[in-house]
Amino acid sequence: MTVNGANGVNGVNGARAKHDVSSLKVNQSRLMDAIHTGCKYGAAHRYGDDPVETGMARLSLNDADKDVRDWFMGVTESLNCKTSIDQMGNLFAVRPGKNTKAPPIMMGSHLDTQPTGGRYDGILGVNAGLEVLRVLHENNVETEGSIGVVNWTNEEGARFPMMAVSSGVWAEAVPLDTAWNLPEVSPGEDGQRKTMKQELERIGYLGPQPASYKAFPIAAHFELHIEQGPILEVENRRVGVVKGVQAFKWFEITVKGRDTHAGTTPFHARMDSMLCAAKLIVESNTIAKKLGGLATTGILNQQPGSINTMAHTVTFTLDIRHTEDARLAEIEQTCRSEFARIAEKESEKGCTVAWKELVDSPAVNFHPDCIAAVEASAKEVCNGLPMTADDGQLWKYMISGAGHDSCYTNRRCPTSMIFTVTKDGISHNPKEYCSPEDCAIGTQVLLGAVLRYDKLRAERGDLA
Amino acid sequence: MTVNGANGVNGVNGARAKHDVSSLKVNQSRLMDAIHTGCKYGAAHRYGDDPVETGMARLSLNDADKDVRDWFMGVTESLNCKTSIDQMGNLFAVRPGKNTKAPPIMMGSHLDTQPTGGRYDGILGVNAGLEVLRVLHENNVETEGSIGVVNWTNEEGARFPMMAVSSGVWAEAVPLDTAWNLPEVSPGEDGQRKTMKQELERIGYLGPQPASYKAFPIAAHFELHIEQGPILEVENRRVGVVKGVQAFKWFEITVKGRDTHAGTTPFHARMDSMLCAAKLIVESNTIAKKLGGLATTGILNQQPGSINTMAHTVTFTLDIRHTEDARLAEIEQTCRSEFARIAEKESEKGCTVAWKELVDSPAVNFHPDCIAAVEASAKEVCNGLPMTADDGQLWKYMISGAGHDSCYTNRRCPTSMIFTVTKDGISHNPKEYCSPEDCAIGTQVLLGAVLRYDKLRAERGDLA
Repeated sequence: MTVNGANGVNGVNGARAKHDVSSLKVNQSRLMDAIHTGCKYGAAHRYGDDPVETGMARLSLNDADKDVRDWFMGVTESLNCKTSIDQMGNLFAVRPGKNTKAPPIMMGSHLDTQPTGGRYDGILGVNAGLEVLRVLHENNVETEGSIGVVNWTNEEGARFPMMAVSSGVWAEAVPLDTAWNLPEVSPGEDGQRKTMKQELERIGYLGPQPASYKAFPIAAHFELHIEQGPILEVENRRVGVVKGVQAFKWFEITVKGRDTHAGTTPFHARMDSMLCAAKLIVESNTIAKKLGGLATTGILNQQPGSINTMAHTVTFTLDIRHTEDARLAEIEQTCRSEFARIAEKESEKGCTVAWKELVDSPAVNFHPDCIAAVEASAKEVCNGLPMTADDGQLWKYMISGAGHDSCYTNRRCPTSMIFTVTKDGISHNPKEYCSPEDCAIGTQVLLGAVLRYDKLRAERGDLA
Repeated sequence: MTVNGANGVNGVNGARAKHDVSSLKVNQSRLMDAIHTGCKYGAAHRYGDDPVETGMARLSLNDADKDVRDWFMGVTESLNCKTSIDQMGNLFAVRPGKNTKAPPIMMGSHLDTQPTGGRYDGILGVNAGLEVLRVLHENNVETEGSIGVVNWTNEEGARFPMMAVSSGVWAEAVPLDTAWNLPEVSPGEDGQRKTMKQELERIGYLGPQPASYKAFPIAAHFELHIEQGPILEVENRRVGVVKGVQAFKWFEITVKGRDTHAGTTPFHARMDSMLCAAKLIVESNTIAKKLGGLATTGILNQQPGSINTMAHTVTFTLDIRHTEDARLAEIEQTCRSEFARIAEKESEKGCTVAWKELVDSPAVNFHPDCIAAVEASAKEVCNGLPMTADDGQLWKYMISGAGHDSCYTNRRCPTSMIFTVTKDGISHNPKEYCSPEDCAIGTQVLLGAVLRYDKLRAERGDLA
């Protein structure tokens, strides 16, 4: 790495000088300004008087998502990045290094949010990447290879129900047509469910670049993300060095019974699909708890939907997770057999249960070189912070509970992640919060990890 | 009663003659033709090849409901009835008797259906009334007082969520404005929820007559209805003499938790409103079963509704029933205390539960004079049928499990009901079925009950 400039954060001049990684500092207030500037697009769910005390409702490819994309393109072009847009609307912005032919190291995350989301999930990761580029830019740093930022489309899967679908297409794990044809989960104001492709076209972000790692190869992918859980906070630590992601599966479960009258059908004559579904939800949680995993039902719908008529059909989603693939399979199998038993034996005249698998995301192990780069950077950053942890270590190896775009990039290039503290472990909620100091700490770790990896690949001859 | 005609079903001439009640016979094929002719409007959910093998989706005040109302008005006017429409769209058709000043005896039910309803619930009762009028008309019968048919609006409460709301307004148990301002349960194609008043105006059935028993007094109300349960069929009987209606209450229960991430929130940190709601639904059924009543949840909604985010809010409906008011109160109180306990103690970090009462319908005891008229008619009709019941009685006293418009009419005039056999006890379902023979038997009982009551009130001087 060559830093064209003087020492310190804001030192900029024309002289070229070798420069130590640790002398480059992210600008906390600039980082937070950028986060909250972008959050003007899609702000929702106000919970306090401060202008930034709102959550977000920036569902993928809605009007606010178009606006923040325009903002992203403007920012990166002002930093002299080369930008491109692929067929899934993934936005790539690359700051050229000495070697512009080798694939870039990318810092990636997402700008879409949950319908009742917060200001940090995904948003922090993209903005941290932009802040790293700003630090390199203002210090005239010339990296060995190119370094960039990517905004992946529809990571949440909240509007188009397949999470991280666009990094999935890039990794060629999800077919382009499958992704393009995904209908939004709820009809719009006109009663129609738009597809991803329709909405990409509508907001002008259906790009020409093939959505594939072959068309846009990446040397390594680093993602800073809020933990979205309570562990770092409870243990008084500051940084998670993420070694992998727990396995998870999503299902849609359909329970069929019979729609008969609530007042005239004695219990013994009932096929009550709602009561059956309620029992299955309770049971899935019991099973997951017993086997050390997680189970969640976030959506339940019924037909016909009338107060005094039993539902003939109930569908509900089931999200199950475990750090180990084998244990996740055990949770699934136990649920399958118990659901069948409950439907047949504990639902009066009996209901039927059908399973549809929506997502199968095996446990992910990130790349040792990327983990090492994050770990080295985390150690250095933590050395400069006051000690708060009982065991004297402010960073911790972690396994991510949530899926991320990094799961898909890991299939095609070395990848790892960095976690920051999340207040009360609350995420997917308007009150989701990461303090400005922790946002900056995480970004500083990201900067150090990326520069270390840049140096590593130069030293081992990847750029020769 | 004076019959102006010869003996038998089709005998019509100008000579006046005293005529025995039992000599008037309903015309089964004409009755069934009328039922299925009317069901052309709103037919849905085909389940077989025969033209009549469909269910119904004639939600109150939709276009199909307008069409069947037009048909009803045409039929009753062709029978020389005096028709009127009140402010709730209740349709009254009265065939004048010798005394036209005294209030009429009315045969009432409803033509609206559930979204996945059948061809008999309500529809049989209105058509039975029309068939009784046809029998009187073709035989030139001059009754002592006037006799008519009423179609009550939105009995189901499926579109506008208050069952029997329009007989309720007539009885002055529900304020007119409350009913008029009821929004439909689901938005229409334009995304808007119309009110009852808007839809009454749209289809042209917002009548000028005040919706009140004072503006349209009724001498007695008789309602033929399918049982909607399995009892008559299981016991091989043909007719239910309905002495009352079980008590029921409807609630909307709101469970509040916290919307956090499904993958990163350990069980001990969760406030999962969906899991809590599932436990409450299971518990309500357990309580109702133990106390000899019924509990049903037909509708459940959640927010925000995302696969990998816990719902922060779940609302569900709770319909509880018991034949005795005191026992219903016990079910409610037990649910209230158990719901609170489960939300607080068995929902990890705890959820909150709020109750909103939608309907309170105490147990109903019908009028002894009306019950006696139905019983006498049922005995006579059953005498002419082959014996199938083990105990030698083809009719049975019953308590209705479902609410009906008759619950409200009973507050303002003597009322009772007649039940007919319902195949497999299935109702609120496209396959709801009552055989043509049983439809005719029920209608014959209705005819006999109405004529007996007409005679009774003449004899005791009500018409003097």
